Amino acid sequence: MPLADEVLKGGFLAVSKAISLVENEAVEGRDLLDALSPRVGAALRVGITGPPGVGKSTTIDELASAFRRRGDKPAILAVDPTSPFTGGALLGDRIRMVKTAEGGTVFMRSMATRGTGGGLSRATQDAADVLDAAGFSVILIETVGVGQSEIEVSRAADVVVVMLSPESGDGIQALKSGLLEIADLLVINKADRPGAERFEQDLRTAFELGLRARRDLPILLTQAVHAKGTAELVVALDALVASRRASGAFEERRRKNMESRVRQIAEFLVRKSLWAANGGGSRIEATARRVLSGEQSPYRAAQQLVREALQ
Amino acid sequence: MPLADEVLKGGFLAVSKAISLVENEAVEGRDLLDALSPRVGAALRVGITGPPGVGKSTTIDELASAFRRRGDKPAILAVDPTSPFTGGALLGDRIRMVKTAEGGTVFMRSMATRGTGGGLSRATQDAADVLDAAGFSVILIETVGVGQSEIEVSRAADVVVVMLSPESGDGIQALKSGLLEIADLLVINKADRPGAERFEQDLRTAFELGLRARRDLPILLTQAVHAKGTAELVVALDALVASRRASGAFEERRRKNMESRVRQIAEFLVRKSLWAANGGGSRIEATARRVLSGEQSPYRAAQQLVREALQ
Repeated sequence: MPLADEVLKGGFLAVSKAISLVENEAVEGRDLLDALSPRVGAALRVGITGPPGVGKSTTIDELASAFRRRGDKPAILAVDPTSPFTGGALLGDRIRMVKTAEGGTVFMRSMATRGTGGGLSRATQDAADVLDAAGFSVILIETVGVGQSEIEVSRAADVVVVMLSPESGDGIQALKSGLLEIADLLVINKADRPGAERFEQDLRTAFELGLRARRDLPILLTQAVHAKGTAELVVALDALVASRRASGAFEERRRKNMESRVRQIAEFLVRKSLWAANGGGSRIEATARRVLSGEQSPYRAAQQLVREALQ
Repeated sequence: MPLADEVLKGGFLAVSKAISLVENEAVEGRDLLDALSPRVGAALRVGITGPPGVGKSTTIDELASAFRRRGDKPAILAVDPTSPFTGGALLGDRIRMVKTAEGGTVFMRSMATRGTGGGLSRATQDAADVLDAAGFSVILIETVGVGQSEIEVSRAADVVVVMLSPESGDGIQALKSGLLEIADLLVINKADRPGAERFEQDLRTAFELGLRARRDLPILLTQAVHAKGTAELVVALDALVASRRASGAFEERRRKNMESRVRQIAEFLVRKSLWAANGGGSRIEATARRVLSGEQSPYRAAQQLVREALQ
């Protein structure tokens, strides 16, 4: 497959085309992923999430520069909740080259939110596979830390960095939404703002009181707009990954992530064949009428529908 | 089936036992629903939703009294987001008899939130079927209007009442969360509070500007704590149902709702047989290992898993 060969060579345009292909859930995309699969697995996948306005993009750009400086080849996947209000990936800007301090460029791609049912999570992981096969060594996956689907996406990474800021005052929100539970590293950005140290103390107290299992969560203070703290973040990530590789926790997590990914894909495929076999809804309509007439309970009717579709 | 006979006679205890049975997703529950299905369909199902603190419970108690006074037999299903923080259905209070003004009692049942995956929606609709077969003529389904799953539950009703209050100032929230889109009737409760009329005007302006399809949405002002406006709400519901029955929209909606209910049950059944056939996860684990070793892409691996499970 010529495109697969181009991807393996790491060309930005081939990679971008390949991601579009897998994003469209077409057969060609599946074939491509199949061709690439023996070459997937070397890249480190870092999920970076946090509430809006916390400075994720700036931090990620800085982080990409820092990874480049020490010889890595980073790429950025920005998962973009395409709200009609805020504008998002649909408005264009699907590929952006991030200029680093030294004048290099970093591959950056926005992933558009696509309905419900796990499509976004699937597409993002597929895109990460493409980047991985293309030889990118670090994949930074940016998601907005609101909503279950964004949390799902970042949970699929090898390591999750949760960003908060002393301003946002949303430590409580982060606790409630489950953000802190998925964090492997906590970053307090805008650390020059008043209250940053107090905020860190409050978080540590919260861990002592209510989230004891999270007591050892590393907390870093950064000022991304002043390029402060991102080099330390790279060091902290390195240390975390090294210790997890040594203990086997790194591979264990990959396996767990892959199990849930395979599970989701299997359910997606079954759903698809279930409804394809039922001829575009006409069978469902007939089934619903049967239930409403009192002929069958919804369960018996659904059972019959499944039996006929998948026999 | 003796329990089915007891349910058809309308005894509160039999109904309560039957709902527990269908809630547990046991085979007995399915058999019961099957036995009841010819007798399901007469009741009107009214979804009542809105943000916390808007006065839903008070309004629903008043509404139940109003329905009783004019000869209906109402029942209340309260969908209860069992947060560990707020306490909920799990803390007991699963059945409550609501005292009406005249001293009668109304059957009231809390439905506990059960994980994700549509379980709550399924259980609530099954419980409504039981109440329907038991001869309750109006089923008031209370959900908190936050979160997609609660919105799903109320969408399954024949008519949806969305409640807001001038205090909460969450008209914008209601717009953003999609609450207003599912409303068939809008109630502004606590109408004696300052700003109620202003709030109504703002909503109407919002409809003119952004939600033109919703321009004709009836808006009612109520003061549930002073028992004001609920009789008018019953009248408005009657008028809405009558006009929908006349136009065929009522039956059309029931059919659409039943289609999506059957669809969800079918997917649930397929998911269950998919994972039951795969022997408690050991197959998934083996599949994940195969993918991680580069042998297969996640899609091929999932495909193989599905084929073997459902052949």
